[in-house]
Amino acid sequence: MPRLSQRALALQESAIRKLDQRVAQQTGVRFFRVNIGQPDVPTPPPMLDAILSFQPEVIGYGPASGLPVTRKAAARYHAQWCPELRAEHVAVTTGGSEALLFAFTAICDPGDEILVLEPYYTNYNGFATVAGAQIRAVRTHLAQDFAIPSNEVLDAAVTERTRAIVFSNPANPTGAVYGRAEVERLATWAVQRGLFLIADEVYRRIWFHTPPASALELDEVCEHVVVIDSMSKTWSACGLRLGFLISRNTELMEKVERLGQARLGPQPLAQEVALAALDLPEAYYTQVRQTYQRRVEALTGTLSGVPGVTVPQPAGAFYSMIELPIDDSERFARWLVEDFRTAQGESVIVAPGPGFYADPSQGRHEVRLAAVLGAPLLERAGEVLAEALQVYPGRSSG
Amino acid sequence: MPRLSQRALALQESAIRKLDQRVAQQTGVRFFRVNIGQPDVPTPPPMLDAILSFQPEVIGYGPASGLPVTRKAAARYHAQWCPELRAEHVAVTTGGSEALLFAFTAICDPGDEILVLEPYYTNYNGFATVAGAQIRAVRTHLAQDFAIPSNEVLDAAVTERTRAIVFSNPANPTGAVYGRAEVERLATWAVQRGLFLIADEVYRRIWFHTPPASALELDEVCEHVVVIDSMSKTWSACGLRLGFLISRNTELMEKVERLGQARLGPQPLAQEVALAALDLPEAYYTQVRQTYQRRVEALTGTLSGVPGVTVPQPAGAFYSMIELPIDDSERFARWLVEDFRTAQGESVIVAPGPGFYADPSQGRHEVRLAAVLGAPLLERAGEVLAEALQVYPGRSSG
Repeated sequence: MPRLSQRALALQESAIRKLDQRVAQQTGVRFFRVNIGQPDVPTPPPMLDAILSFQPEVIGYGPASGLPVTRKAAARYHAQWCPELRAEHVAVTTGGSEALLFAFTAICDPGDEILVLEPYYTNYNGFATVAGAQIRAVRTHLAQDFAIPSNEVLDAAVTERTRAIVFSNPANPTGAVYGRAEVERLATWAVQRGLFLIADEVYRRIWFHTPPASALELDEVCEHVVVIDSMSKTWSACGLRLGFLISRNTELMEKVERLGQARLGPQPLAQEVALAALDLPEAYYTQVRQTYQRRVEALTGTLSGVPGVTVPQPAGAFYSMIELPIDDSERFARWLVEDFRTAQGESVIVAPGPGFYADPSQGRHEVRLAAVLGAPLLERAGEVLAEALQVYPGRSSG
Repeated sequence: MPRLSQRALALQESAIRKLDQRVAQQTGVRFFRVNIGQPDVPTPPPMLDAILSFQPEVIGYGPASGLPVTRKAAARYHAQWCPELRAEHVAVTTGGSEALLFAFTAICDPGDEILVLEPYYTNYNGFATVAGAQIRAVRTHLAQDFAIPSNEVLDAAVTERTRAIVFSNPANPTGAVYGRAEVERLATWAVQRGLFLIADEVYRRIWFHTPPASALELDEVCEHVVVIDSMSKTWSACGLRLGFLISRNTELMEKVERLGQARLGPQPLAQEVALAALDLPEAYYTQVRQTYQRRVEALTGTLSGVPGVTVPQPAGAFYSMIELPIDDSERFARWLVEDFRTAQGESVIVAPGPGFYADPSQGRHEVRLAAVLGAPLLERAGEVLAEALQVYPGRSSG
């Protein structure tokens, strides 16, 4: 049999998906699914209406970087963070995923390195693997509210091959929200080291007390900044697979256009839906924030009184990375799926912590919960998790 | 300014797209657009109806390798070439483009090489660049009906880093159709050299006299075979961005699943449309073949009597790579767009030959024409091209 590439062999099976296969084998269980960032919030009706109005004679290709009308609308929407933004600064991509892959590919050659604030969104690993780049993690800590590390700590992670630093804001999985001072310091540091700053802002509209600073606001360093956005979370359309790569670095955008040409254009139908999304009134975003604030409070409120459990208060996004009195979060997650049931036949599906660390020996006492269900369901999910902890055989004395 | 990756700098601007920009600057010209493989054949109504019936409450993620129902339907459809095919042998991808990128990435590490029968589909270059792989071209010739080169010629192109050979059948841009004996010889050769055979069969249903052999038919070597399919051409849905990667190599399919997990699942809406497509009656495919045969004959028929013009008779797909009495096909294509007009204000947009060769000094006397318009329009396009050749200042004496 012909051999596959080393990078293919290196691709980790997603712990989340592995668990999904075990879930599929269970019957008669009422699972609370808080492991995946797939909200049950209805997609706004104008977006669904846009699907109905797409009836061309021929479903034809669109341009590589997106339809002009979509790029213009995205620039107009993002102008609230950067008034200078023009259509040519926006490339439409197949999800935020492709935007990240394009950013990594345009910036890194095989063997180059990307710094990532850790814990981090698991799929950064996959994009780096495809691009042939190496992820180097820089740890953030719950005890410091997951603050961006000092310049000295960042410096210690830089090598000759480092080309960029990527972070999400608000952050997945920590729920941290970074304000202007922090983002500006990180950007200034990146510029001084000759690095790109890749800001994954797909949760930008989901914050609870103070808004995150968008890297788009940073005028002076704009040639170093790449921003990722997506229809998936704010607009509850994960399955639309539509995202944006935004940068005022025109040389970068020219290369992104060429990367886009290689795979032809993103789907015009999804872009029609995005146009409807970008046209929603400001009240929509207020409602989104309130919805997730209520949910996150329901989830963390139920758990924060439980002995041995440490529950950070997320400031944005819709995740919480909680610490549990357990031996091993992957074992615990499997046990929840296969062995634990409440008297009512319920259990919870959680995302084990190690999936969010570069070194899988980290995060063994943590799980990520996603507030993707209605508040009453999340409260019950918290209760079920608390009940499970009482009887889990691998409970540590903590 | 931070520097971009070497591979980004190496990405060629698509000659076809460059020409498009010049086209956009012209006014009052009636262009016959035969440069891009974007048919004007209407998308089958059941596919458009499928769009209308997609109204979920939440537009949610689907599985990484596609919805089970789509994979099953694709396996059932492709079972006419391989009765052993099962859902797990099919991964749904964002266009044939992503299927090619996944194949290249799963098979090649950076620096590895892929052989390609030349002239070839330009975008193979882009996928190889993203994957960090090198394209090595093996020439086929019009005088030999673009036959697959002998084993000796193939051997001469193999190095220690060669990992796969990719070809399209029916072929873009040559219109060649390879039968069972040829495909089997190529596959046997690939197996002996430890290579994967990547068969790009997106034009499989478009043939005029004898059908191509699908690499799916080759039972004994099936672990070496990867087949690419797509909704774009046969089903006239280029903009749907839906394709398939098919292989009975289960180790490869497992890695493709992981590559898919990194970018989350392909769009469920597009998969609903694909289900409608795969459910079309056999009569649909007969009609598609007849349509393109008529078109290709209209295009080549008009041109084959023109002095100095060599017009191969395509056996499938909908392209013809014709030889013209000109100094340089890129200059000729620009001149057609910017300077030449018939008395009725018409001109033609063609794809210059060098875009289909690894070495851009090749193909300078060739252009690719795509039979993507109705037969009467293609006849007129041929007449316009013939008229243009009479007055082109760079006409060679031939």
